[in-house]
Amino acid sequence: MALRVTPAVGQRASGVTAARGFRAAAACADVRGEGGVRPDVALLASDVPAAAAGVFTKNRVKAAPVVVSQLHLKRGLARAVVVNSGNANACTGSQGLADALRMVQTAADAAECDPGEVLVASTGVIGRSMPMERIRHAILEAGGRLDAGNGHLAAEAIMTTDTRPKESFEQFVVGGVAHTIGGMAKGAGMIHPDMATLLAFVTTDAQVAPDLLRDLLRRAVSSSFNTISVDGDTSTNDCCLVLANGAAGGPDLLRDTPEAELFADCLDSVLLDLAEQVVADGEGVTKTFSVRILGAIDERQASLAARTVTSSPLVKTAVHGGDPNWGRILMAVGRSGADLALDRCRLRIAGHELFAMGRPTSVSLDLVAKSLNQTRIAIEIDLGVGEAEATALGCDLTLDYVRINADYST
Amino acid sequence: MALRVTPAVGQRASGVTAARGFRAAAACADVRGEGGVRPDVALLASDVPAAAAGVFTKNRVKAAPVVVSQLHLKRGLARAVVVNSGNANACTGSQGLADALRMVQTAADAAECDPGEVLVASTGVIGRSMPMERIRHAILEAGGRLDAGNGHLAAEAIMTTDTRPKESFEQFVVGGVAHTIGGMAKGAGMIHPDMATLLAFVTTDAQVAPDLLRDLLRRAVSSSFNTISVDGDTSTNDCCLVLANGAAGGPDLLRDTPEAELFADCLDSVLLDLAEQVVADGEGVTKTFSVRILGAIDERQASLAARTVTSSPLVKTAVHGGDPNWGRILMAVGRSGADLALDRCRLRIAGHELFAMGRPTSVSLDLVAKSLNQTRIAIEIDLGVGEAEATALGCDLTLDYVRINADYST
Repeated sequence: MALRVTPAVGQRASGVTAARGFRAAAACADVRGEGGVRPDVALLASDVPAAAAGVFTKNRVKAAPVVVSQLHLKRGLARAVVVNSGNANACTGSQGLADALRMVQTAADAAECDPGEVLVASTGVIGRSMPMERIRHAILEAGGRLDAGNGHLAAEAIMTTDTRPKESFEQFVVGGVAHTIGGMAKGAGMIHPDMATLLAFVTTDAQVAPDLLRDLLRRAVSSSFNTISVDGDTSTNDCCLVLANGAAGGPDLLRDTPEAELFADCLDSVLLDLAEQVVADGEGVTKTFSVRILGAIDERQASLAARTVTSSPLVKTAVHGGDPNWGRILMAVGRSGADLALDRCRLRIAGHELFAMGRPTSVSLDLVAKSLNQTRIAIEIDLGVGEAEATALGCDLTLDYVRINADYST
Repeated sequence: MALRVTPAVGQRASGVTAARGFRAAAACADVRGEGGVRPDVALLASDVPAAAAGVFTKNRVKAAPVVVSQLHLKRGLARAVVVNSGNANACTGSQGLADALRMVQTAADAAECDPGEVLVASTGVIGRSMPMERIRHAILEAGGRLDAGNGHLAAEAIMTTDTRPKESFEQFVVGGVAHTIGGMAKGAGMIHPDMATLLAFVTTDAQVAPDLLRDLLRRAVSSSFNTISVDGDTSTNDCCLVLANGAAGGPDLLRDTPEAELFADCLDSVLLDLAEQVVADGEGVTKTFSVRILGAIDERQASLAARTVTSSPLVKTAVHGGDPNWGRILMAVGRSGADLALDRCRLRIAGHELFAMGRPTSVSLDLVAKSLNQTRIAIEIDLGVGEAEATALGCDLTLDYVRINADYST
């Protein structure tokens, strides 16, 4: 029997340590060298070797930790993950690669496992050398504090311009055994569809073979992180890792079974929840909006049109200003290249139909402007040429986005 | 003999009336219905039928005037152009098409020519019906004022959020006869590479056959308007029109002759000058920057990489903040998809080499930050994989861009 359950309030569950057999810790390395005391190194360990899979950035410029983690994932197994914020260890040449490997070796010492079982991720400024002595000390310090209650601390340590940590978890029952999937993510800028965006780490106590885990992760990423956009930029460091250690003691989840589907649904939910938290915490964001494209020729075109609207600076600023300037939405759909029949197109904002059969409707723009004051806005466009649909999630472009990014590294 | 000459200061030349045999006028229709008194309708007329060519937006959602002008250009001849700002006449259905045709008919009456010889363009808010009575009156009023000294007034009338009119001209001598090419443009937002962007109108008193004129216009657009980006959005209304009336009395310029090349060079210069003026006047812009990509596999990839950098919100905000966060530039190059060899890449900002042979150089970031205070910044990236190169022109992303666009229509 397979059963999905709603996590009970007040459970010990917190992100990456919600599932059994995972411990986490955070420590401060002052990676940015500004005398900071906020934890900026996180260590995550599984009590037993776990099946592992990852999705990584498609950016041609890949950071050193991405290269190392991709290599280590070839075996499909991992015991620990080490992460730092404040420095991306990207564009740092052979020194960066050596530094990523030193992080791995130190984490292996701290978590008492083989270096080949360690995955590594970094996020922060590109092109700066890593303060390795401080980072090494912090990893070892974290190793001494690994605890199943520390998921939240780890979620805080991986933040950069995030204003809050992002965690999620789901539970399901298979064969009378309760299983948990939990995760954490960071990301607030440099986030765009069609890449493995941001940093996300997911753990589960289910028993899943590496190849199935990899396939289900890819599926989940495509319907969660790959539907969101903050600013159209994608990082050199983005990755989403999942570890499945089987510590719940349930049966092995096999491909194409209802049990595996249940696991996949819960994985989708965790990733979608994290993705929505990332958009809502996008740099300077005050509102999010969903764009649902209907009536497209195929799903690829529907998705392309939806993502083009969520990425349009003119749409994003109009949403910010609560401005019912719906023509910008049709402009963005038009430049996406998706097929459409303008005289059969329909456009709705917060349920108000503004455009139908090739021309504006008589709906009151003041009414629409009022709806745009909400913090979550639904936009629907029917392209009028087919049956396919897709949804993307975006956020407004604000003065604070510019302020935050005009002087991030300095 | 073919000779390019530098236009003498103080000549009567002003944009679209710099060339012989062209007259222009502007009038106020209060298109936005806000009681405005600023001229918002422009009329341009050639004394004799002129060869005509156009390049139009690739947006799938095309405004009514675009549809009409494309149709009228099939003959390759035109006598007049009528333009309004304040309303794009886009997404306005069959009424919009009827309105565009009424503008054409009225302009034909005003300029005393055949409606089939009139081109029309509109720019402004999308999805609003046109105040046709006021527009008709303004066109007729403009018809009574057509004058060879009014190019500048026309350039002002086509402005929307532009802070200043954009005009340019060049002169050359063929067979002892001086020829002029002049133009005007408007555009400050919704501007991006790879489309016929914004509104631009060019006139010349050279004698050029329509098919040659069309080919040379396309070439000139691809090396001018198609290299610039303000915000990545492209309009439903963009077009660039050129009229050649032969009024200088020079010889017919024939394909593949030095004379035609000279004409083409001057046309390129006028369009590039207008394009640079558009970027510099981009919404909220305080700085422009050029991105030159070297060492690419082919020109397409070089251009793709250059345009991805000029479109990146993170690069644009870093330029704005004078922040030497060069990693964002490599990030943008990486996500463009262009082939590169990171260990042979080089990156220069304002002549300072910041990244070479796969790692950061020891150049002082303070020194680079100082260079970023200039209002025009040169960025160069060598991809290290080939010989091809391309340049794109962009601008910073500022608080004012957000302010301007958060409440444009309201």
